[in-house]
Amino acid sequence: MNTAPAIAALPVVERGSISSPRGFRAGAVYAGIKTAGAGKLDVALLASDAPCVAAAMFTRNSVRGAPVIVSQEHSADGRLQAIVVNAGVANVAMGAAGLANAREMCALAAARLGVAAADVLVGSTGVIGRPLPMDRIRDGIARIELREDGGDDFARAIITTDTRPKTLAARFECAGHAYTIGAAAKGSGMIHPDMATMFCFLTTDAPVERAFLDGALRDAVADSLNMISVDSDTSTSDTTALLANGLAGGAVIDASHPCAAQFRAALRSTCIEMAKMLARDGEGAEKLIEVRVEGAASGADARAAARTISASPLVKTAVHGNDPNWGRLLMAAGRSGARIDLGRARVWLGSTAVFAGEPLPFDEETASDELRGADVLLRLDLGCGDAAATAWGCDLTAEYVHINSDYTT
Amino acid sequence: MNTAPAIAALPVVERGSISSPRGFRAGAVYAGIKTAGAGKLDVALLASDAPCVAAAMFTRNSVRGAPVIVSQEHSADGRLQAIVVNAGVANVAMGAAGLANAREMCALAAARLGVAAADVLVGSTGVIGRPLPMDRIRDGIARIELREDGGDDFARAIITTDTRPKTLAARFECAGHAYTIGAAAKGSGMIHPDMATMFCFLTTDAPVERAFLDGALRDAVADSLNMISVDSDTSTSDTTALLANGLAGGAVIDASHPCAAQFRAALRSTCIEMAKMLARDGEGAEKLIEVRVEGAASGADARAAARTISASPLVKTAVHGNDPNWGRLLMAAGRSGARIDLGRARVWLGSTAVFAGEPLPFDEETASDELRGADVLLRLDLGCGDAAATAWGCDLTAEYVHINSDYTT
Repeated sequence: MNTAPAIAALPVVERGSISSPRGFRAGAVYAGIKTAGAGKLDVALLASDAPCVAAAMFTRNSVRGAPVIVSQEHSADGRLQAIVVNAGVANVAMGAAGLANAREMCALAAARLGVAAADVLVGSTGVIGRPLPMDRIRDGIARIELREDGGDDFARAIITTDTRPKTLAARFECAGHAYTIGAAAKGSGMIHPDMATMFCFLTTDAPVERAFLDGALRDAVADSLNMISVDSDTSTSDTTALLANGLAGGAVIDASHPCAAQFRAALRSTCIEMAKMLARDGEGAEKLIEVRVEGAASGADARAAARTISASPLVKTAVHGNDPNWGRLLMAAGRSGARIDLGRARVWLGSTAVFAGEPLPFDEETASDELRGADVLLRLDLGCGDAAATAWGCDLTAEYVHINSDYTT
Repeated sequence: MNTAPAIAALPVVERGSISSPRGFRAGAVYAGIKTAGAGKLDVALLASDAPCVAAAMFTRNSVRGAPVIVSQEHSADGRLQAIVVNAGVANVAMGAAGLANAREMCALAAARLGVAAADVLVGSTGVIGRPLPMDRIRDGIARIELREDGGDDFARAIITTDTRPKTLAARFECAGHAYTIGAAAKGSGMIHPDMATMFCFLTTDAPVERAFLDGALRDAVADSLNMISVDSDTSTSDTTALLANGLAGGAVIDASHPCAAQFRAALRSTCIEMAKMLARDGEGAEKLIEVRVEGAASGADARAAARTISASPLVKTAVHGNDPNWGRLLMAAGRSGARIDLGRARVWLGSTAVFAGEPLPFDEETASDELRGADVLLRLDLGCGDAAATAWGCDLTAEYVHINSDYTT
């Protein structure tokens, strides 16, 4: 997981979503939690027809929202069957009332679906420090219609400052069975996961053994959702969960199953695609920045350097302005703590080499053009070894400042 | 050093500068290194009439500029007599040529002043990755006139994107002698020192023992220059140095000297004032943000929480927009790794309490007004112990993005 990910071409499902895998249904309504209404959705529900083997990961911020605390309890036994989410208010730092509200959301979803409350994962995202409007949430959950094509509504309902919903499904065939992985994610600011992004929910109809599912999710997240940054702030509500209901049939996939590698690859590709969607839609962002670090002394060095470069405000502003100010890449890599042999280090903006132990002559206009598109590649060889890693981020724009200068008021 | 600094009222010298202490002279010229000219200065020189006991601290970024490498060598014996600085080009990542240029700057200053090159500290600040225009620097150093009132020119010459020079002198009397500490600093972006800010040069005419001087500088920097952040990026050129020439007379001040505490306090106050000047003049900044963290389980926790809050883009943008979005303070404190007891934690915006184990009712307009001035105080009690720390930062504005989107082009 510490080598540069060669991202497999993903067999994407046309108009796929979190409800594409067999036996999953989803839906959402507008309950009046988000401000402004027409066409908006803000309470979402996902359910599986059968209990799922599940794995979940949560924020490592020491301030955790009540839904994170409850979801950690509910996912601890590796079994989930439903997900309930609201957007608009985050239910963080609300004391005992917050915990009670998170539990009630699970109970309401459970009663509606006829499953156990302990099999429901709950998420709330939005402003911190306001009480959840439980009347509206109760009413909303009661009104949600679950449909096999409801994944798009689910993805639309969970977003906050995102400019578009993030949804995807991928299919792979193995051992005579066709399996699907679906995903819905949200997150646009407060994104520097030390776990996952704010939300990334995943479903699959593959039958998967619990320990293998857990390991596959952790590895996939390490190379994807944990390698993106919008603003270096880590949310109190970050949640990723993967529910596998096995309804597509076949023998249970574990580490020794012939489909193990394919499952891991499909999950990893799905997570990387979702991570890139999140970074590209960072608050105010106009560009997706991919940072590839190679020649590192260790995988940890490669990851630290790649993440620090992708999160550096000075790198992000330079890319925004098409300014080939490559010194900032070396500065950020050096700040990361990664070992760098400056005499052997190399730097590229796109495919233009700008540094190789010393500055290289390059055409400013050509180098500037490398930064001009919607997809920008920055590449750095630390000159110390053969470990590599890739991170994703976005440019820093005046719009980011505008969005975040008056979020509550 | 891990308790909240009660900042002593500083006996400031009217129009004081780095050349205010006895026996220091300074000067600067415009040598054509900074773009645009009229009235600008970009090469500066400081000299003491006598050799100085010296202490210095440098960036911990693993990518270090050639001047940092040379200055580390020159200050290793605790003896310096002069400082030569250019602004406009940073002399970082320039290979062997960069090192040779940094050494030549020291040799030129030494020849001009009749001191040893090994007693000269050198600094270069500006764009990374362009060669120093040595012809202009040679010409510039030859033309500099040193004057007792040259400290203001020195301070003006070393700035880059700063909107104003940072200069100060403080006086204290002890054991029948009047001692002065002078300072000049620069730095506006790429500021999140893990050592000092880009440059903070300090002089004093007090006679000080070397080990005591070194310890006093480290402690002062820990509470001041290491507690500010503009954009969380750490420069490759950060340098702080303190030169003590002893020309005001008296017995050598060491840890057991009756003036030891007064010297430490004056140095600490001077460094804190310089740190605040730097944070207030952060790139694009309109406000100085002071973050006081108390009730921490340890000094390290208090420092980490205060620094992380002061550096958080979401806190900085909220302050910019007068948005009383206090949840972001808890989020940032939680991300810092500091222990927080949410049930006992408290948060204030200025003097308005907004959280005490749970959100407190408060008037939005009043809370917003707490963020409206040029000096904003944010206060957080982590509810875990009695350690405290203070950090300083600035708001994040669209102007920061504009400044950094085209720095080289």
